[in-house]
Amino acid sequence: MDIINLREVMKGYTALEEDITSDQQQGLPQPAMDKAYISAKSISLPKDFEDVVVNNSFFDIMNQRTSRRSYNDKPLTLKELSFLLWTTQGVKNIVGKKNKATIRTVPSAGARHPFEAYLFINNVEGLEPGRYHYVATEHRLEFLGSLENQMDRVSEACCGQTFVGTCAVTFVWTVIPYRCEWRYTNKAQKYSLIDLGHVGQNLYLACEAIGCGTCGIGAYDQALADALLGLDTEPSNEKENEFVVYMGSVGKYDPKE
Amino acid sequence: MDIINLREVMKGYTALEEDITSDQQQGLPQPAMDKAYISAKSISLPKDFEDVVVNNSFFDIMNQRTSRRSYNDKPLTLKELSFLLWTTQGVKNIVGKKNKATIRTVPSAGARHPFEAYLFINNVEGLEPGRYHYVATEHRLEFLGSLENQMDRVSEACCGQTFVGTCAVTFVWTVIPYRCEWRYTNKAQKYSLIDLGHVGQNLYLACEAIGCGTCGIGAYDQALADALLGLDTEPSNEKENEFVVYMGSVGKYDPKE
Repeated sequence: MDIINLREVMKGYTALEEDITSDQQQGLPQPAMDKAYISAKSISLPKDFEDVVVNNSFFDIMNQRTSRRSYNDKPLTLKELSFLLWTTQGVKNIVGKKNKATIRTVPSAGARHPFEAYLFINNVEGLEPGRYHYVATEHRLEFLGSLENQMDRVSEACCGQTFVGTCAVTFVWTVIPYRCEWRYTNKAQKYSLIDLGHVGQNLYLACEAIGCGTCGIGAYDQALADALLGLDTEPSNEKENEFVVYMGSVGKYDPKE
Repeated sequence: MDIINLREVMKGYTALEEDITSDQQQGLPQPAMDKAYISAKSISLPKDFEDVVVNNSFFDIMNQRTSRRSYNDKPLTLKELSFLLWTTQGVKNIVGKKNKATIRTVPSAGARHPFEAYLFINNVEGLEPGRYHYVATEHRLEFLGSLENQMDRVSEACCGQTFVGTCAVTFVWTVIPYRCEWRYTNKAQKYSLIDLGHVGQNLYLACEAIGCGTCGIGAYDQALADALLGLDTEPSNEKENEFVVYMGSVGKYDPKE
């Protein structure tokens, strides 16, 4: 695809597109709003995380936010991690009868929320290092197993960005495109990417609030990143397609840096 | 483009793309980091806006944020508007020597910040209704002229979403794709859309902080929206291409609604 054509993906509705009928309009069933359990090893996350906020001033957070790539070796607590998961994908409410939808801490076009959140845990109190999946509707983590040389491999998957390998936890968001395409067809890709930014910005701000630093990561190798999570990137059903779409490194930092 | 191909736009680097050389790598000049003045009618924006924050608790803002589509007819003050412009695109610092870049209240891949912010002012104290352009590097507004039946036309451009026509001010972000493509070529479209979400999320949160409501708007008619801003959508030079990419309605609301 040449670059001028790629720009079209960023555009709104045009007269040509008015005749596209969505799967929703055709009466096809809504896809699941979250991924079914992957693992039996489930970790309940605390919800009394208000006390982890050390800087609660919205104004100061706006002033201070910056991309932080230099981390020290202090661990995150489980409560801090829980707060970051809640602010980025936390479910506040489930609405609807026939077609249920999640209302979250972030907005998403038509409340489609087409993402799944995964973590590469490196240094979090009480959690074994390894891969985890966030079950947003239940505010739980699932342990997906450890990974040899995990942080070196995460860094390699991020096109060799070495700072990623030093963080306490790497957030990885995947997209399940059909969750949004079911309603928005050829606008779903644009909406999903904008919605990802909503998520990423909350990670930035929530990190500032708890004395952590983060850096959004768009440069990664698709095949390596998908392989680290064990995703089936060529499913027999396109509706089940899921792949890594954005990442964020998180860690504590020394204030002077 | 079929939907399966559109998904590719959301992906990271693949082995096939490693040979693409960016205009930056070819030594081509960096595009301007903001749009040159359009109008001689310039309005200075106050920067002592800290006192407009009526809810400064980050934790409460996270809990309360929602899409608000029902507005009352109370105007925004210029200070409130100034705060919203600063939190969404405000320039904190300009860095670099040969290739200057803006450091803003929102992150953007490679500090490219490929957006321009425009406003349709309907009900802001001290500002004539009409179209405005935000000069981010100087934290100023430029008046671009009034528009007959402005809010009806804005609503029409938003695919007939009538609530948009009732808001005090409509934020409109355009993208100048080349600003990001110069460095990121065929990843620029993805990065720009994620970066838009960073901007949109800050509008949501900053509105909560000042007692306003907002709703992000992805459904709009490209030709109508571009025409309202008088954009040249078929410039002779593709590097100057600029088009509407995301919007947000803003207004005060009655707490009970």
